[in-house]
Amino acid sequence: MTIDPVALTQDLIRCPSVTPADAGALGVLQAVLTDMGFACRRLVFEQEGTDPVDNLYARLGTAAPNFCFAGHTDVVPVGDAAAWTVDPFGAEITGGKLFGRGTADMKGAIAAFVAAVKSFLDRNGTPDGSISLLITGDEEGPSINGTTKVLDWMRAEGEVIDACLVGEPTNPRALGDMMKIGRRGSVTMTLTAYGAQGHVAYPHLADNPLPRLTRALTMLAESPLDEGTAHFQPSTLALTSIDVANPASNVIPAKGTARFNIRFNDLHTPKSLEAHVRDVLEEVGGAWDLKVHVSGEAFLTPPGALVATVAGAVKAVTGRDPELSTSGGTSDARFIKNFCPVVEFGLVGQTMHKVDEHVDVADIRTLAAIYDRVLADFFGKVAA
Amino acid sequence: MTIDPVALTQDLIRCPSVTPADAGALGVLQAVLTDMGFACRRLVFEQEGTDPVDNLYARLGTAAPNFCFAGHTDVVPVGDAAAWTVDPFGAEITGGKLFGRGTADMKGAIAAFVAAVKSFLDRNGTPDGSISLLITGDEEGPSINGTTKVLDWMRAEGEVIDACLVGEPTNPRALGDMMKIGRRGSVTMTLTAYGAQGHVAYPHLADNPLPRLTRALTMLAESPLDEGTAHFQPSTLALTSIDVANPASNVIPAKGTARFNIRFNDLHTPKSLEAHVRDVLEEVGGAWDLKVHVSGEAFLTPPGALVATVAGAVKAVTGRDPELSTSGGTSDARFIKNFCPVVEFGLVGQTMHKVDEHVDVADIRTLAAIYDRVLADFFGKVAA
Repeated sequence: MTIDPVALTQDLIRCPSVTPADAGALGVLQAVLTDMGFACRRLVFEQEGTDPVDNLYARLGTAAPNFCFAGHTDVVPVGDAAAWTVDPFGAEITGGKLFGRGTADMKGAIAAFVAAVKSFLDRNGTPDGSISLLITGDEEGPSINGTTKVLDWMRAEGEVIDACLVGEPTNPRALGDMMKIGRRGSVTMTLTAYGAQGHVAYPHLADNPLPRLTRALTMLAESPLDEGTAHFQPSTLALTSIDVANPASNVIPAKGTARFNIRFNDLHTPKSLEAHVRDVLEEVGGAWDLKVHVSGEAFLTPPGALVATVAGAVKAVTGRDPELSTSGGTSDARFIKNFCPVVEFGLVGQTMHKVDEHVDVADIRTLAAIYDRVLADFFGKVAA
Repeated sequence: MTIDPVALTQDLIRCPSVTPADAGALGVLQAVLTDMGFACRRLVFEQEGTDPVDNLYARLGTAAPNFCFAGHTDVVPVGDAAAWTVDPFGAEITGGKLFGRGTADMKGAIAAFVAAVKSFLDRNGTPDGSISLLITGDEEGPSINGTTKVLDWMRAEGEVIDACLVGEPTNPRALGDMMKIGRRGSVTMTLTAYGAQGHVAYPHLADNPLPRLTRALTMLAESPLDEGTAHFQPSTLALTSIDVANPASNVIPAKGTARFNIRFNDLHTPKSLEAHVRDVLEEVGGAWDLKVHVSGEAFLTPPGALVATVAGAVKAVTGRDPELSTSGGTSDARFIKNFCPVVEFGLVGQTMHKVDEHVDVADIRTLAAIYDRVLADFFGKVAA
């Protein structure tokens, strides 16, 4: 008996699991997986100052290699509810499209993976190895009580995964366009320039920090960080805010603060970027405070067995050679890459995070076929 | 019978005339001047959105030339009241110093002028001409319902003044140090750079206005406006605030706003400075909005009869050659200069606007002697 990935997607959509709420989504998944013979562990993590989050680790089999599918059941908020033309949690199908918050990002991919495992098992029986799912409820939120803590728990338990496919919506326009083989890193820096307050009529008695700040920011914004690599776009630095909040037009302020974000490729690390920024500050001179917040390191899963398996499955099912990309924002792959090779492939992301999020119903079935073929290739079994 | 300028200063200090309150200060003055034969006009001006302000124009005689003494009875707030070691409105004399808000800026000078007129008249009788006082209650405030409106009223009434001495505290350290023969102009500009919002991970899809803003501000802050003149310091541009208020570290903002103030000499006008700023903006490129608020034009009363009269009186009484300066902030002289030659000379300004504002009691008497000598020289009469 097969599993219909579209119906399962609908069941998941009908759970309004806006981070950090689970709203029953993991339970829906756990019931299906338990029926299929998976051993399921629910993992609730909490940390002071954050909301507790429910997560699921499910494994079929105990032998190596362990192929892991990673994803999240949490979704971003509805946004402007009045702008939706359908119930965001109604899972309505109209004109061949399934609507609802989380269809693309990424309940459709989770359902496709479950359906793929079922058809793979029905055809080939239990593989020489294991199949697992690492599903978090905290990918769209602070990502503190989700994948990182599940991975820590797995390490402590001796749970090993050997290859991982993250089901994020990687395709810009059509299924098969693009897979991700790495991601740029992201670091946010908060820079404060200090001087001495004074009256604008007597600037020589003050020390205005703002010209130093604008000079340093201009240098940082205008000097390229690199030219990009074979697999990565050039790194970018974006000024996001500058704030002084001095209401007095006749007063030179004592300090000014700016914030900028750097998306960087594997030519850099947060440490090397901090050194670069500090070099600029030293060249400009003056008193500074620099705070560095690392959201993720850059990483690359170089073309090899896993990349070839997924790209081959995409080609076999869709006829398309997916672009091997490292573009876009961050995902939980940034945590998983410390444990095993990881790539990302999922649905079309055009409407993710937007009003009237939807996917083609046919794409969910096609994605299930691709995931099925990935499993067959990975375990050396017969493809559908 | 002479008038004691110290006692009159004390009477004025005891009126807590923090802008826009008069608290009886103009009444104290009017009573003394009326006794001396002055015709007094109280002029209350108001304007929507501002507090009404009381002003006084007093004139002795009707003939030309009319020598005018200008000043203000309003004072800045006490500030940190707990930090004062005396009652700010107690007018206490300790160790040869008279303490109180407004002693230096500038009730002491007003009292000195009244005492000077009395001694001049007692010695010489009525002069061939007129002596007048233009006293406002709105110099420390928005300066909207004060000197400008009195001058407008005077123009409408056919009231002419031929020379003016403003009693602002011009001396940095000792009485006789410095007089002002002009002032720099002041203009505040508010500059907004516009772009297009976007996600920091996709900077090519956004248009970040902040690098353009920091570049333009750096160019403006780092390029000298001039080298100064024989009578003026170099003009200065001070960045006072930059504000974006973008709380999201992953969002490129759509706009950023900066404010700066330019203190400029008579090589510039607000129009020429605006043109300079617009040249820089054009060089940087992009969409901008520039708002220009003119607080005052630069002006100079070139060394001539009035400057020589006041400098000569200072030298005769104190033995010091006062520096002919154009430094410092603005004063009501910026309005009066459109009507007649104007210079500024008053007490020592070291403690003005500060806690425990005070002046040497002896300085008030010396200043009265200087003002007396100015009148004698101006009207060609016998000096004391």
